[in-house]
Amino acid sequence: MKYSYVSHLYCPKCSSTFDTKNQHQLCTCGSPLLVAYDMEGIAEHLEPGHLKERKADLWRYHELLPVEDESNVVSLGEGMTPLVHLPRLGVDMSLENLYIKDEGLVPTGSFKARGAAVGVSKAKELGVTAFAMPTNGNAGAAWALYAARAGIRSTIVMPRDAPRITRNEVAISGADLYLVNGLISDAGKIIGSAVKDQGLYDVSTLKEPYRIEGKKTMGLEIAEQFDFNLPDVILYPTGGGVGLIGIHKALKELKALGWTEGDLPRLVAVQASGCAPIVKAWEAGARESEFWHDSKTKAFGINVPKALGDFLVLDALYETDGCAIAIDDDEMLEAQKQVASLEGNFVCPEGAAAFAAARRLKEADWIREDETVVVLNTGAGIKYPDTVDIESEMLEKGDTLPK
Amino acid sequence: MKYSYVSHLYCPKCSSTFDTKNQHQLCTCGSPLLVAYDMEGIAEHLEPGHLKERKADLWRYHELLPVEDESNVVSLGEGMTPLVHLPRLGVDMSLENLYIKDEGLVPTGSFKARGAAVGVSKAKELGVTAFAMPTNGNAGAAWALYAARAGIRSTIVMPRDAPRITRNEVAISGADLYLVNGLISDAGKIIGSAVKDQGLYDVSTLKEPYRIEGKKTMGLEIAEQFDFNLPDVILYPTGGGVGLIGIHKALKELKALGWTEGDLPRLVAVQASGCAPIVKAWEAGARESEFWHDSKTKAFGINVPKALGDFLVLDALYETDGCAIAIDDDEMLEAQKQVASLEGNFVCPEGAAAFAAARRLKEADWIREDETVVVLNTGAGIKYPDTVDIESEMLEKGDTLPK
Repeated sequence: MKYSYVSHLYCPKCSSTFDTKNQHQLCTCGSPLLVAYDMEGIAEHLEPGHLKERKADLWRYHELLPVEDESNVVSLGEGMTPLVHLPRLGVDMSLENLYIKDEGLVPTGSFKARGAAVGVSKAKELGVTAFAMPTNGNAGAAWALYAARAGIRSTIVMPRDAPRITRNEVAISGADLYLVNGLISDAGKIIGSAVKDQGLYDVSTLKEPYRIEGKKTMGLEIAEQFDFNLPDVILYPTGGGVGLIGIHKALKELKALGWTEGDLPRLVAVQASGCAPIVKAWEAGARESEFWHDSKTKAFGINVPKALGDFLVLDALYETDGCAIAIDDDEMLEAQKQVASLEGNFVCPEGAAAFAAARRLKEADWIREDETVVVLNTGAGIKYPDTVDIESEMLEKGDTLPK
Repeated sequence: MKYSYVSHLYCPKCSSTFDTKNQHQLCTCGSPLLVAYDMEGIAEHLEPGHLKERKADLWRYHELLPVEDESNVVSLGEGMTPLVHLPRLGVDMSLENLYIKDEGLVPTGSFKARGAAVGVSKAKELGVTAFAMPTNGNAGAAWALYAARAGIRSTIVMPRDAPRITRNEVAISGADLYLVNGLISDAGKIIGSAVKDQGLYDVSTLKEPYRIEGKKTMGLEIAEQFDFNLPDVILYPTGGGVGLIGIHKALKELKALGWTEGDLPRLVAVQASGCAPIVKAWEAGARESEFWHDSKTKAFGINVPKALGDFLVLDALYETDGCAIAIDDDEMLEAQKQVASLEGNFVCPEGAAAFAAARRLKEADWIREDETVVVLNTGAGIKYPDTVDIESEMLEKGDTLPK
């Protein structure tokens, strides 16, 4: 019994392969690399029933994760987030089997913690002592905090307009934090030259192969939480798309293990109308997206004009008969209120967009009433103080409440 | 097999008993009421090993919770939060077996969710359709959001200086939210008259008996996570003290079941120097605390000048050979940085106070180096944007990073 059955890295574009003993970034052809496992070895030693004996975090799937020595695991207890049925919202949307997978309940309050946990652990295993990345907020927060636990030095550059809460998280981790008077693309250029000049490990989105393995665990958990009877539709707020790529990869791996049967869930990439390159590409039947100029949305987590893994996201949509859909900011914020007032989940704007998308796809009969639908909420609403408008009555001491 | 083995309510002051079929608030003598269970019935039907088959949330302990019909459970997936070993901070503090129990990973980002989940569920079971409470923030946020899921109308009054994030949570739940130009005591008076005039169920701290049962699950989880070999010391940031009362109650119940043996952990009530009524009472050997005038601390969750359950907190300290200790705000914020930069946990100021207390008690040899120590972090650091001071270098586009 090995802790991990990781086998090698491969390029989904040019099919080159690489080992997992050395530090790798992109393929020589420029594509992100993916991680392969010895599926036969896993199938021989592991059964779904074994999982029940394990702790409720994402490391319960360690055979399907890339960290080979358990002592390298850097964990804050992330994973096995709740999958909760939403009956009241379901009635409102005519979807009787509507569920939320709530990624607000992880360290740092966003699903980025999964990628950071696995990415930082593998970086530690590979002997990385310093890494660098640009961020719009949540990813940098997660990677900086996990780096602190790992004893790895992190260098983070974020736009000065990135949310204050995420800036706090990076700062308190002790990371080398820099703000830039510009956008994340400007931060990316600064990181790019630092990586070259200072020999730092580049942990920008998809530039190292292991973040995706952490995100993959959302798919593994959804499957396990449904006792390996997969749902019909999974909606995912899509910026860089790593989560969607990861979920797709996870479900294919479970099929390869023989743990699940039948069609994969139809995967839905949900974007903001102000930044919808994947939607545009999907509507055109294209294999890649084009850069989206002057992107704008309150859901900063999905403000990604051109994703490095766009072709993998589109593959996931085409292969599962999924779709892509764009949601206006107003509709998104309206959905955020609906979810909170009917079900008590204070979701982030990105998650709210995915709920709005579920409603629209039901109205368009793309989703049927009796189908099982999972909406990924990628983070806690409390991380976005500026998306809630409040008007409250102000009382003075000794006042009484109106009836 | 019953879902719950709840038996009755009893008064810890005057020993009166009450049923659990009707709505009760305080005892006729003014004391909070506690919930009793048929421990023999539980011992007959339940073994620790059964728990492993259950979902990783607090409802896994349903026999020891007051909700009798599972259909009344109002859950957002709360509970079974991580218990994480802190080796790097442990070296720094000369405590090799130092653990965090991280309550940041629950719905609403604070441990208040536990009390709300069980309290709202039982309120629903008792036919409550509207309730009211004053709040400094986190409790109101949790109760309002769980009420939304339950379809119960909530009326919340909070000081206008309460944190904006918690105000957002209440507002987006659809609760009737009022701000008061005053303190929580002023909010409490307004709620008090509304309860009387409008027949609302009063869910103020300890004025209904079931919140404490939700908080109790922290103790149950700590025990289960240590395989029922209890730790030596548990440190708890103490305002109203419901969590500490609950943990103490939980551990005594586990002893009564025969699931754990030996001495209970020494319980430590951690307060802020600017609001330390329990510490003052404990130092004097008193059974109750006195109102603390002009209380002041950045850890607003433990700014409680006089707790209704103070006598139960003090009992817990005396019965377990525990202690009470006060921490300055500066020391607290310094500890917050230490925990984040050494272990990656961004804890709330209240949790940070408990870490500072562990350090001080180790230095004073009240805790020994080899003892197993659990620090409760009661909420996510991201809920407190104002406690982090940041100075970051600002770059312009095209700049390079200093080496």
